[in-house]
Amino acid sequence: MYVNRHYHIWSTVRWSKKPLLNALLYSAAIIVLYEITDIPFSLPWQPISVIGIAVAFYLGFKNNSSYDRAWEARKIWGAIVNDSRSLAIGILSLASNQVPFEWKKNFIFQHIGWVMALKHTMRKGKTWEHNSKIENLVFTPYFREEGLKGMEAELVKYLSSEAIQKLKGLTNIPIQLLKAQSLELKKLEESGGITEYKHVWLQQLIARLIDNQGASERIKNFPFPRQYASTGLFINYIFCALIPFGLLDIFAQSESLHYWLTVPFSTIIIWIFFLVDRIGDYSENPFESAYNDVPISSISRVIEIDLLEMLEEKDVPKPYPVENGFLM
Amino acid sequence: MYVNRHYHIWSTVRWSKKPLLNALLYSAAIIVLYEITDIPFSLPWQPISVIGIAVAFYLGFKNNSSYDRAWEARKIWGAIVNDSRSLAIGILSLASNQVPFEWKKNFIFQHIGWVMALKHTMRKGKTWEHNSKIENLVFTPYFREEGLKGMEAELVKYLSSEAIQKLKGLTNIPIQLLKAQSLELKKLEESGGITEYKHVWLQQLIARLIDNQGASERIKNFPFPRQYASTGLFINYIFCALIPFGLLDIFAQSESLHYWLTVPFSTIIIWIFFLVDRIGDYSENPFESAYNDVPISSISRVIEIDLLEMLEEKDVPKPYPVENGFLM
Amino acid sequence: MYVNRHYHIWSTVRWSKKPLLNALLYSAAIIVLYEITDIPFSLPWQPISVIGIAVAFYLGFKNNSSYDRAWEARKIWGAIVNDSRSLAIGILSLASNQVPFEWKKNFIFQHIGWVMALKHTMRKGKTWEHNSKIENLVFTPYFREEGLKGMEAELVKYLSSEAIQKLKGLTNIPIQLLKAQSLELKKLEESGGITEYKHVWLQQLIARLIDNQGASERIKNFPFPRQYASTGLFINYIFCALIPFGLLDIFAQSESLHYWLTVPFSTIIIWIFFLVDRIGDYSENPFESAYNDVPISSISRVIEIDLLEMLEEKDVPKPYPVENGFLM
Amino acid sequence: MYVNRHYHIWSTVRWSKKPLLNALLYSAAIIVLYEITDIPFSLPWQPISVIGIAVAFYLGFKNNSSYDRAWEARKIWGAIVNDSRSLAIGILSLASNQVPFEWKKNFIFQHIGWVMALKHTMRKGKTWEHNSKIENLVFTPYFREEGLKGMEAELVKYLSSEAIQKLKGLTNIPIQLLKAQSLELKKLEESGGITEYKHVWLQQLIARLIDNQGASERIKNFPFPRQYASTGLFINYIFCALIPFGLLDIFAQSESLHYWLTVPFSTIIIWIFFLVDRIGDYSENPFESAYNDVPISSISRVIEIDLLEMLEEKDVPKPYPVENGFLM
Amino acid sequence: MYVNRHYHIWSTVRWSKKPLLNALLYSAAIIVLYEITDIPFSLPWQPISVIGIAVAFYLGFKNNSSYDRAWEARKIWGAIVNDSRSLAIGILSLASNQVPFEWKKNFIFQHIGWVMALKHTMRKGKTWEHNSKIENLVFTPYFREEGLKGMEAELVKYLSSEAIQKLKGLTNIPIQLLKAQSLELKKLEESGGITEYKHVWLQQLIARLIDNQGASERIKNFPFPRQYASTGLFINYIFCALIPFGLLDIFAQSESLHYWLTVPFSTIIIWIFFLVDRIGDYSENPFESAYNDVPISSISRVIEIDLLEMLEEKDVPKPYPVENGFLM
Repeated sequence: MYVNRHYHIWSTVRWSKKPLLNALLYSAAIIVLYEITDIPFSLPWQPISVIGIAVAFYLGFKNNSSYDRAWEARKIWGAIVNDSRSLAIGILSLASNQVPFEWKKNFIFQHIGWVMALKHTMRKGKTWEHNSKIENLVFTPYFREEGLKGMEAELVKYLSSEAIQKLKGLTNIPIQLLKAQSLELKKLEESGGITEYKHVWLQQLIARLIDNQGASERIKNFPFPRQYASTGLFINYIFCALIPFGLLDIFAQSESLHYWLTVPFSTIIIWIFFLVDRIGDYSENPFESAYNDVPISSISRVIEIDLLEMLEEKDVPKPYPVENGFLM
Repeated sequence: MYVNRHYHIWSTVRWSKKPLLNALLYSAAIIVLYEITDIPFSLPWQPISVIGIAVAFYLGFKNNSSYDRAWEARKIWGAIVNDSRSLAIGILSLASNQVPFEWKKNFIFQHIGWVMALKHTMRKGKTWEHNSKIENLVFTPYFREEGLKGMEAELVKYLSSEAIQKLKGLTNIPIQLLKAQSLELKKLEESGGITEYKHVWLQQLIARLIDNQGASERIKNFPFPRQYASTGLFINYIFCALIPFGLLDIFAQSESLHYWLTVPFSTIIIWIFFLVDRIGDYSENPFESAYNDVPISSISRVIEIDLLEMLEEKDVPKPYPVENGFLM
Repeated sequence: MYVNRHYHIWSTVRWSKKPLLNALLYSAAIIVLYEITDIPFSLPWQPISVIGIAVAFYLGFKNNSSYDRAWEARKIWGAIVNDSRSLAIGILSLASNQVPFEWKKNFIFQHIGWVMALKHTMRKGKTWEHNSKIENLVFTPYFREEGLKGMEAELVKYLSSEAIQKLKGLTNIPIQLLKAQSLELKKLEESGGITEYKHVWLQQLIARLIDNQGASERIKNFPFPRQYASTGLFINYIFCALIPFGLLDIFAQSESLHYWLTVPFSTIIIWIFFLVDRIGDYSENPFESAYNDVPISSISRVIEIDLLEMLEEKDVPKPYPVENGFLM
Repeated sequence: MYVNRHYHIWSTVRWSKKPLLNALLYSAAIIVLYEITDIPFSLPWQPISVIGIAVAFYLGFKNNSSYDRAWEARKIWGAIVNDSRSLAIGILSLASNQVPFEWKKNFIFQHIGWVMALKHTMRKGKTWEHNSKIENLVFTPYFREEGLKGMEAELVKYLSSEAIQKLKGLTNIPIQLLKAQSLELKKLEESGGITEYKHVWLQQLIARLIDNQGASERIKNFPFPRQYASTGLFINYIFCALIPFGLLDIFAQSESLHYWLTVPFSTIIIWIFFLVDRIGDYSENPFESAYNDVPISSISRVIEIDLLEMLEEKDVPKPYPVENGFLM
Repeated sequence: MYVNRHYHIWSTVRWSKKPLLNALLYSAAIIVLYEITDIPFSLPWQPISVIGIAVAFYLGFKNNSSYDRAWEARKIWGAIVNDSRSLAIGILSLASNQVPFEWKKNFIFQHIGWVMALKHTMRKGKTWEHNSKIENLVFTPYFREEGLKGMEAELVKYLSSEAIQKLKGLTNIPIQLLKAQSLELKKLEESGGITEYKHVWLQQLIARLIDNQGASERIKNFPFPRQYASTGLFINYIFCALIPFGLLDIFAQSESLHYWLTVPFSTIIIWIFFLVDRIGDYSENPFESAYNDVPISSISRVIEIDLLEMLEEKDVPKPYPVENGFLM
């Protein structure tokens, strides 16, 4: 997630230089051909603008949906923050005084382990994502290192090596961690450390965490439907392919304007439509380890800090750093 | 559900070849007639473009609604995943230690049976759906086989043959399975296997599953209102029928352009509008055993795997395969 | 609710024949006048198309809102299905074994009575609805008969005549039925048939049914705000009234086209805009005993069937029939 | 709230006669000036229509938001209906048989008092509302009388004079009434009239009423953001101010049409845009004692009737009257 | 938040004088250049208007999202009001009679402390916000003073100096205050001041407050995605940069109109598009201590007043003042 007020225009141009160059070459090729052959292959502008309106609707729909996906993803991780805090506070204030502080600390540490495991699970690549390599995230070295080190490097801080061993070979690690937490609560009640009623209330918080995990997986595993994305892209291509012909028609008719103006002008229009499409495209998948991600590393760190401060730990990590304008 | 980044343009063209060919023939017929008769039956473009805007609004509305239906369907099945996990964890961590593990396993197996029964129920054809035959799903042979074998082939893995027998002749099999589960919980409490409070908490989870089933049935049984779908289709037809006349007017007026250009150009515009309509049309019903379905087979498999791993079963099935780019 | 894939184009034309004929007569009248008087009362098209865009926005807004109302109505009745199932399962699995089966059956029968009472209450006419007579619903004779027989004909199947007698003179029959159910639960606890905790849980389900009834009444009693509906209609009228003048301007200027073409062309455009308005208008009120209703008769039948099968009754009615393509 | 099918066109014209006259005078003034001075101060139409599209977006946004506010307000008051019914039924079916009926009746009467107090609180003027005097609501004399008599006239029916005395000087009367109800429930438990568990359940219903009150206050106290409303108005003014110049350009260019046609035509367009703006403007604040209000007097009456019938009172008031098409 | 009916047009002009002047200078520069060089560097209007439609979509999307963010922020703070009232009423009506009033008062005071701490936390600057200095808020001196004095000045009214001392050095002060409240409740139960069941119910209210705090932080910490905001700005710039060229084309072609009219006309259009963009931009962040903020100081005051009146305190502060039309 970018956190400065505005992207620099040049970094945006650089980011979208491929469509920009293509637009330029394509427009120029058409005008050169026109220059050479003198065949009047222009097209009327009015029907092109009707396609333009259809494309604008489609891009609007796509941008909207991408934004909704990102916002829902953020809400889900917001709920993870909330329920993590509630769970930690619940353990501290509902378990009886007989329960040793060490047990409570362990339970909360295991919860942080779940957060870290979920974070890493969310970032495994999907066939419809952009899947740029984690090594290439040079603008965010801290985040890059986290990705390269992987899940286990973080789990060792909060889970016993025995617990980590048990997770090997499981299909869905975070859900089995929540199961383990539930069995811990069961044992706590059996040992008299908590009353039945309070136990079930905490189990209910675990059920909310199960909901949060499932919701996060839902966004991760269900892409913006590819039929919509592809159709949007195709009609955008068709529209953009027609633009130079339409502009040539207009400029060629004009007495005072030269038809070579078609090149810069159609380049700009094509670039705008591709830029808008691309922005939607790169915001669709909020957990793809790319610069527009919902910043779940930073959110996980917030949970870590808050829970450790609740335990009055001395060694509390710093908030996640902003690197070159990005918070991940 | 397609899971690659983009459909191939040719597969899209092939998929929509009927409207494409019709558009071509229709446009050509008009121009041939114009060529022969020389009657100036062109029409002014401006009012046609007003119809075009109305059609664009309608298609936007339809695409939006279809997408919302698919997304809501996915959310509901996401909730089924969550509540299934919560139920299984709840049974494992709330039932007393006296309850034999076999009982818990049975209960969870019966729950998987409910998931499978619901999955198959969701895929019975509706009069407003496309109802292509399951035999024709040649791109997804694994899924095709699952459909051809039917519900009982999957129930036998998780339900006793006696339980399956009882379901015969019932109108709504999944809801009666949830009733059976509730009676199991009642017996569990009566036998002292669970306290009253915990029993009601688990019953509450059953009530959430009842909600999920009902919500899934709601999407299945209530189509995108046919009056909207039909009106959208009709005005799209009218708009497309007028396009060649409008373009003919523009091209005939032009000095440099030939009016035969009407044919390819109007073919493209008609194709775009029909493609957009068709995409909405084929995304409307998220459970019709077609390629744009919400992938409930794969989701059911996720539940199966997670619950079996919670039971520490050895024989856990593999995740649902992606077949030719489709996950069903 | 229409349940086939598409309305037939002719049935749609027939349904909207009034605006179609008016559009034809109005356009023709203007051209005849123009023919006779030769006064050039045409109007420029561009500003008319700006009004057209405003109208398109308005119609889009109206169609969207109508659809949302229908969808919300369907959701509410979906919740009624869910909570009815939960209540019946709850009674069967939470009441103690001492409670005679007859009592449980009675309670569930009374609940079905509430569903039927609510269904009939929802269909009383409102001043802003279309209020076509139930006698005229000739396409759906089964539904027509249900409407003509009225509420009591259905209540007698599930409520004692004494209970029915008590309902006479009450302003809101369904809510008083839910009150009666609550008092039944109170007596059940007093007689030791259910524990306090389970009693309150069932009372909570009653509270959810109260919410559902209230939500259904809210949609019924709060129309799509008439100021929006009326303004939409007025500006649609103004736009359509201007169309022939604008087209006349275009056709009269054309050398090759005859201005009599104004008549069919403006008829088509006016018809489209009125059709779209009318579709919204006839989908606004989801419980007005008309063909676009949310099918609450059919939904009530689903509840009836499921609950009777849970009671293992022999005499279970068939699902609601589809009549001439309509499910009511 | 207007409850007939459609406003009469003349009542709408009368309601918006100020913008209509202004539009007429303004357009006429411009044409007269043009007639006299002969300066060609017309403006090209195309860029004006771009502003028109921006204005249409803005008005669409505003109308949508106003509608959402009204609909949310209606939902909140629907929730007040539901929770009121649940509370009354809860008191009747959860309090023990020892509790005298008179106590229950008193509690429910006090609840009706809260509804009435909230209704009157909602109708105090805000700086951004239209604040027409209640005396001027001549079309709805019954409602006018209710407003003029004020809150206390209704409270005396349901609260003891002592309780009313206590409310004097409090900033927020309804919230303190809910506090008083909570203390009543506390006393009920202390006196053995209800078990702890049921007490907390009823307290939870009070908490839902607190939510409803807060939600209603939120809509009342947070206007549609004035920066949006003002900007919408300003660009609407600019657009409408330019319209006659643009039309003059079109009509002056036409050979057959006279430029005086600018006056009626621009009057109509300006009127349409102001009408649409005004409709949004007058639907923004759902509790301003004006004709487009959410009908909270009528809703409160529904609660009154239902609760009194639950108490089997003899003297039940009639439903709120529709007066000249308005239900308030 | 502005609370008068409409901003004054001049204050809006003044507020947006920078884009207005830039537009004027830019347009004038182009026409001067045209005047001097006589090079016909005009551009055709039609393709510019297609860009205009894309920009209008983008601005509509941005305004919508900004509004949704503000509305959600208001809802969250509405929930804080509701849950604060419920908590205070809960303490007063659920704690046993043995608990001294002083304890209850202390607990509620600490809750007010949490509200104040959250309010101040919400107003710390973010890199994407406008970050105008609090000293510059000259129109709202009362609010300015509150901001300059800072959090501690308000905490001392409600928290003991010892409690304030403990908060020093903590990363997230409000969440640790909620933890402290939870430990207070734990002690209350241990000392017999509340039953287990009621304790957990109050703890559930604390969990709702945790949710509210997290939701408020979510809006604060997750900006409207910068890639959307920046793209919107860039294409708005491009569109506006092209406007004078397009208008020059139109005016230069006209026989009766002078091309110098391009200057005022393009100034107006550019100003409108920048104004609309700016309105969205300044409404995006609802807690940035600026004039369009959600008025959380005023909302906090409402909580303060209601809770103090529930405690029947004598010294209740006045509602937050409206200063020069702003309520903060």
